[in-house]
Amino acid sequence: LKEDYQIVVIGCGAGGGTAAQFAKKTNRKSRITIIEKGQYPQYSKCGIPYTISGIIPKIDDLIEFSEEWFSKQNIELILNANAEQIDIKNKKIFVKKYSEIFEKSFDSLIIATGADPVLPPIKNLKKGNNCIEGVFSVRTLDDAKKISSYIKNKYRVIIVGAGLIGLEMADSLFKRGLKVTIVEVLSDILLNTLDKDMARIVSEKISDEIIIFKNHHVTKVESVNGKLNKVCIKNKITDLEKSIDCDMLIIVTGTKPNIDLAKRIGCKIGLNGGIVISNKSETNISNVYAVGDCTEYSNYVNHKHILTGLGSIVVRQGIAAGINAAGGDYKLLQGVLNTSTSEFFNIQIASVGPTSDNLKDFSVISAKYNGLSLPEYFPNKKRVSVKLLVDEITGNILGAQIVGDNAAFRINTFAAAILGGIHFETFRKLETAYAPPIAPPFDVITLVCDKISIKLSHKK
Amino acid sequence: LKEDYQIVVIGCGAGGGTAAQFAKKTNRKSRITIIEKGQYPQYSKCGIPYTISGIIPKIDDLIEFSEEWFSKQNIELILNANAEQIDIKNKKIFVKKYSEIFEKSFDSLIIATGADPVLPPIKNLKKGNNCIEGVFSVRTLDDAKKISSYIKNKYRVIIVGAGLIGLEMADSLFKRGLKVTIVEVLSDILLNTLDKDMARIVSEKISDEIIIFKNHHVTKVESVNGKLNKVCIKNKITDLEKSIDCDMLIIVTGTKPNIDLAKRIGCKIGLNGGIVISNKSETNISNVYAVGDCTEYSNYVNHKHILTGLGSIVVRQGIAAGINAAGGDYKLLQGVLNTSTSEFFNIQIASVGPTSDNLKDFSVISAKYNGLSLPEYFPNKKRVSVKLLVDEITGNILGAQIVGDNAAFRINTFAAAILGGIHFETFRKLETAYAPPIAPPFDVITLVCDKISIKLSHKK
Repeated sequence: LKEDYQIVVIGCGAGGGTAAQFAKKTNRKSRITIIEKGQYPQYSKCGIPYTISGIIPKIDDLIEFSEEWFSKQNIELILNANAEQIDIKNKKIFVKKYSEIFEKSFDSLIIATGADPVLPPIKNLKKGNNCIEGVFSVRTLDDAKKISSYIKNKYRVIIVGAGLIGLEMADSLFKRGLKVTIVEVLSDILLNTLDKDMARIVSEKISDEIIIFKNHHVTKVESVNGKLNKVCIKNKITDLEKSIDCDMLIIVTGTKPNIDLAKRIGCKIGLNGGIVISNKSETNISNVYAVGDCTEYSNYVNHKHILTGLGSIVVRQGIAAGINAAGGDYKLLQGVLNTSTSEFFNIQIASVGPTSDNLKDFSVISAKYNGLSLPEYFPNKKRVSVKLLVDEITGNILGAQIVGDNAAFRINTFAAAILGGIHFETFRKLETAYAPPIAPPFDVITLVCDKISIKLSHKK
Repeated sequence: LKEDYQIVVIGCGAGGGTAAQFAKKTNRKSRITIIEKGQYPQYSKCGIPYTISGIIPKIDDLIEFSEEWFSKQNIELILNANAEQIDIKNKKIFVKKYSEIFEKSFDSLIIATGADPVLPPIKNLKKGNNCIEGVFSVRTLDDAKKISSYIKNKYRVIIVGAGLIGLEMADSLFKRGLKVTIVEVLSDILLNTLDKDMARIVSEKISDEIIIFKNHHVTKVESVNGKLNKVCIKNKITDLEKSIDCDMLIIVTGTKPNIDLAKRIGCKIGLNGGIVISNKSETNISNVYAVGDCTEYSNYVNHKHILTGLGSIVVRQGIAAGINAAGGDYKLLQGVLNTSTSEFFNIQIASVGPTSDNLKDFSVISAKYNGLSLPEYFPNKKRVSVKLLVDEITGNILGAQIVGDNAAFRINTFAAAILGGIHFETFRKLETAYAPPIAPPFDVITLVCDKISIKLSHKK
């Protein structure tokens, strides 16, 4: 490993911060600089909803690695600094901090520029460059602080976008006593994570607590004295419009990778708009790596590229980029499993692999099993619903989705099955841990395989 | 499938009952008879400790399949009936019910005779054929009833044997307000399930609640008016003796397979004293199957025979024996993973694969990781300790043990890794489900692989 090897990381999110950390671990004598445009060092974006609910008492608790920490690691962290331009031929980056521009040389570059929220076309949403008062995104620590201070004495919130973050925010704001309405343009909530039949289980349960408008989009907002006070929504199918009084509008309809810098130096951009990376987390330009929400990578199951969206994937790319950029050798899996989970309104959900809609090139046989978390005779058992997607030709498990008790840890076992290419008939025989207060002798994760087996035998 | 195919099942425990159920499912026209020596139909032995604590309100709630249920399935269940003798040549079984003896013909026979408690050699323990008042085993529904009625107005209980059932009983009796002392002959508790270093974590924690004598055995008991009032124990190492006042002695030092009938017809008995079965759950005699605690079968990892002791394995054997006995085709995995779990004193433990002591034929590299159940910044996170055993030559996972949060579901993922033969370096990259209130971005189950990897790199 070369001494004085210089690594520049653009962005100190989970991806960039992790990359810097692992680069340093790999080559203690490397010189590492992180250029971060914001004012905070590495913090957890995924934790934001829990600062709003108050479960995490202080918003700054989300800072996982402080400036002092980076300094102790001998990693130079420059905050409030913008990477303006890259001279890829001479391996230099031009950085602007306040009004000053300076340059940094690098041997390896790690692009971790993240993604920014995309605002849907809503009339009257903006005043100049900013959203009107009462309209928020959920992306940064500053977003969290703004929302947190704004909710005092507010009663009605509308959340646009019923993905994981939308629902986590819904739960948090509900816990804070607000009346919550969710507006989702698709035909149900969570359709990026769950098949429609599984999503319906969730939306039916939470409809007791909040109002959900499916197939609706927001057309315009109205304000009084510059403050939001009404949101107009429209049914995509019936075209019926409706206006709803509200104090806050939270927009979580997705993000767009920040790829400008990467594009300008010739990094390959994929069909999803992310920087394409290899299993070394490297771009098409040698010694230029990319990690996190600005990237796209293969899905392990269907081999299609997808945008990186999950914190768990971001940090794994960070490890790969950091080690490889510093001269080590680390390979990502040949694709992402996209194992994900969340919990809201006391419902845990989890998913691994593509949803059915993303498996149209496969002969998929699927089954659903509604079971119990504990043996029949044991008190306080909970419902668990599991859906399994199997390749009819190979018998391999393609994906699984769970709603209910311990969904996350149950899904991990399916993730291992996909990783190990375990045939569903073999997985079906897996001895799962059994004890009456913990799990039944046959867990739902194997019982759903029985249903696949029966379906297949009827087809023959 | 033949009509009027006759199947006799000896024993209506979880193994026998499950076998009968699956035989019927496989061949609806088969005639199935279960001969059960006790007075109860299929019930959950594993649930007994929770009837003592009161979590399960009525002891009879443990009955999972009633006489009516069997009758509706058109399965003949004969209770209080003893299988006296088998004429294997003429495929007949002689059954004694009360004083009457009758015979049953069979095409297939399923032996599910279970195992009975072994009482250690303790002086004064018995009066005639029975234990003196105040001494109990934990095996049957009647044992549960006897213990449950005896604990009223009792204060001090001694439990001999610190296996899973011993500790579950300790927790239950502690919850009922009794002062609990455990006496274990080995050098720590739980050594059939955990390595010593993992067991120590548990014994240290629960020493706040109960008294544990390790390396001790019970030498004699004393009684007043026929009722137990003192137990004498002896330190195996120092030979020091001690006598302890107590009202109850609960003996859970292990069981012995009931193999007399099987032996008499020539079934092969293994080195562990159990009936040897194939992956069809068949004995060496064709059309004679055996399931449950009276059997022994290979361990998936080290291929050594072990006695069947876990409910989860028993029911899987039941499925295999039932389907195969009725003319279907079902194969068990090539060995048991021995995935097990339990929870006591608010500590969950789990294990899969052999413990280190049972892997002496392998080059084992092991690592331990003490981590947290949630991200550092999230409140109410819990400790999780995990130990991983890896084959240094192949890189395969041989076994894993977990103490702490969600141990059972975490261990299931290792079980899948063993089943799928996933190399530990691949498993290390598993994307586990991450959400701040549920699990950290890197779960302990993959972090422990990092430690193995580091250990191996230092060895090279």
